[in-house]
Amino acid sequence: MSRMIPAPRLLSLDEAISRVVDSASRLPAETAPLLSACHRVLAEEIRLVQPIPITDRAALDGFAVAASATVGATSYNPLLLPLRAISAGDPIPPGSDAVIPLNLGQPQPPDAVECVQALAPGENVEVLGSVAAPGALLSAAGTQLSPPHIGMLIAAGLVSVEVIRRPIVRIVVAPGSATTDINGPMTRALVERDGGVVADTVTVERSQQGIRSALGAEGVDVVLVIGGTGPGTDDHAAAALSKAGELAIHGVAFRPGETSGLGRAQNGVPVMLLPGSPAACLFSYEMLAGRAVRRLGGRDPALPYRSRVMRTARKIVSAIGITEICPVICSGRDMAEPLPSFGETGLMAAVAADGFVIVPEASEGHPRGASVTVYLYERSCIGG
Amino acid sequence: MSRMIPAPRLLSLDEAISRVVDSASRLPAETAPLLSACHRVLAEEIRLVQPIPITDRAALDGFAVAASATVGATSYNPLLLPLRAISAGDPIPPGSDAVIPLNLGQPQPPDAVECVQALAPGENVEVLGSVAAPGALLSAAGTQLSPPHIGMLIAAGLVSVEVIRRPIVRIVVAPGSATTDINGPMTRALVERDGGVVADTVTVERSQQGIRSALGAEGVDVVLVIGGTGPGTDDHAAAALSKAGELAIHGVAFRPGETSGLGRAQNGVPVMLLPGSPAACLFSYEMLAGRAVRRLGGRDPALPYRSRVMRTARKIVSAIGITEICPVICSGRDMAEPLPSFGETGLMAAVAADGFVIVPEASEGHPRGASVTVYLYERSCIGG
Repeated sequence: MSRMIPAPRLLSLDEAISRVVDSASRLPAETAPLLSACHRVLAEEIRLVQPIPITDRAALDGFAVAASATVGATSYNPLLLPLRAISAGDPIPPGSDAVIPLNLGQPQPPDAVECVQALAPGENVEVLGSVAAPGALLSAAGTQLSPPHIGMLIAAGLVSVEVIRRPIVRIVVAPGSATTDINGPMTRALVERDGGVVADTVTVERSQQGIRSALGAEGVDVVLVIGGTGPGTDDHAAAALSKAGELAIHGVAFRPGETSGLGRAQNGVPVMLLPGSPAACLFSYEMLAGRAVRRLGGRDPALPYRSRVMRTARKIVSAIGITEICPVICSGRDMAEPLPSFGETGLMAAVAADGFVIVPEASEGHPRGASVTVYLYERSCIGG
Repeated sequence: MSRMIPAPRLLSLDEAISRVVDSASRLPAETAPLLSACHRVLAEEIRLVQPIPITDRAALDGFAVAASATVGATSYNPLLLPLRAISAGDPIPPGSDAVIPLNLGQPQPPDAVECVQALAPGENVEVLGSVAAPGALLSAAGTQLSPPHIGMLIAAGLVSVEVIRRPIVRIVVAPGSATTDINGPMTRALVERDGGVVADTVTVERSQQGIRSALGAEGVDVVLVIGGTGPGTDDHAAAALSKAGELAIHGVAFRPGETSGLGRAQNGVPVMLLPGSPAACLFSYEMLAGRAVRRLGGRDPALPYRSRVMRTARKIVSAIGITEICPVICSGRDMAEPLPSFGETGLMAAVAADGFVIVPEASEGHPRGASVTVYLYERSCIGG
């Protein structure tokens, strides 16, 4: 029978966050084809090589004309000009230097267009290099590419880009009494949300030897061990990590998630210890491990939720000495109503809530009507 | 040589949006394994079958005790009780009915724990069914599943769920003079962002016959035709659709994107016409086609951007009679500074902007300092 690990001394959440972020350095770059680079993070800035546009071209759909031929045109004095229909992006034909917008020119088939407004030379024309000159910054290093970036970079002549490699994650599940693994699939979904790739999910026996055997994985950037972090006689995660590497943190003053830990395997790979209780696993990931995954992949380690200052609809009670994550539902424009805690209702609170409030260690909560920062779950959007 | 399509009569953007949304009905359900259901949209509500928890269990890591044995315990009068370490989620052992939290109990090896606070019976214990009773609503129909939903539904005993089928999209590119296809890859990334699956991207000759040949695809839910929507002599998209089905809309009063169209192929599949100019293609997708893709897949057809009311740092000028999408960059907490228009700088504006303002048809713009709603691009988050 193994000796029990004594109850860990709790580190403050802020200190633990900074240790987690420091443990994870941005991964090196790799080349990705632009066609599959959406949502990837640029490893280097991209500057323009050719001017945009590369020739004088129509800025919008309409009719190419010589501006000098439009002088004097008004709705009282429409002028008939040669019909040269042109689509946005088409090169300006010889002899033209302006474009009548679609809704201001009336074609008079077969070969004329009615012009009711004088144009200046160059009007509705993109002159060579007028959008951007060679050397202009297209995208800064660290940019997460969106669909318009993909279009813009193809337009600039690129076919591939240097992006930060995706972090490769091993999930090690050391189940306790539960028969069904809730944490593995949930954590996989969290890792994928944060741009990571789950190399494998390994279920091990909840023994020191079982957990140790899974810590030495090669070819992964971070190992997440779920379960066995508590003070029970079958909680071996911390002991396994201190034997098979280095246990730097065990016990963080936040709830749910206070038995979280952090260290490194012998091969130097960061190892995060997440509690096996599902709500604690979720917030251990959100508050700590997820920051490492995002930072490894070049993303912002901050919480991936937008926040809004709202008012509490009821008192929020919290223990002094420990940061508490409190689920809330939102009503009206700015009221946040506390729900029963994650400790009381577990994942139900995460599913029922619109977001959560973080009550810091030094606070015993918030009175009714207090201003609080609410981190909001996105409902019905994004993904991909 | 074919006859030119006359300049289209422009429909208001609001009317076009409601026609696009009406053209797209939510797709039927399919069964998805929970392990791959993250970000999918539930087709039906899910109610609990078994109680949660299914047995009395520890609500947090700590020490199981009989509450009656803690009566009188204070920090001045610590009581030594039998050591029964317990992890959150573990069943409460016989003879215990409360749990001392980890940070309030001090183990005294080998077999005692020091208790400094009296507990009530049931304290830190989740009683059978106390979180949720059978029949409780876990997730409403239409919910987009997040990682905690996956965990919660596995905990509730599910292995698969009924979700709305992903919309299958055909992209048809009818390139004009441009040699490189910018729009196909950009639109694919947009469709994937919105939960759609691009079945294929077909490049066709920009002729009526070329475009018609690609409209009759079977097994797809919507066809996006990009290019050939303008008034030029080689703009055949609208004519092709009216010959090979029904052209319901051609010409919408918004910019960029005013030559957008909508109809149906002969087999009843909705067909969206998007202009070939990249910025117009982007906003034709954002303002119109994307709503169809999202609605087909059970998502909210509204713009997938969060919005914030901000003040204009400079005047925003816009033409009356046409809705204009104006790129802005944000400074400070709430200032929105207009950038050169999409018409002037194309996709550069989309890449440089922090978001955009929609100036309605009836407005000629906003003076400096006016309140405007800014739709904000997400920077460095989400994806997945």
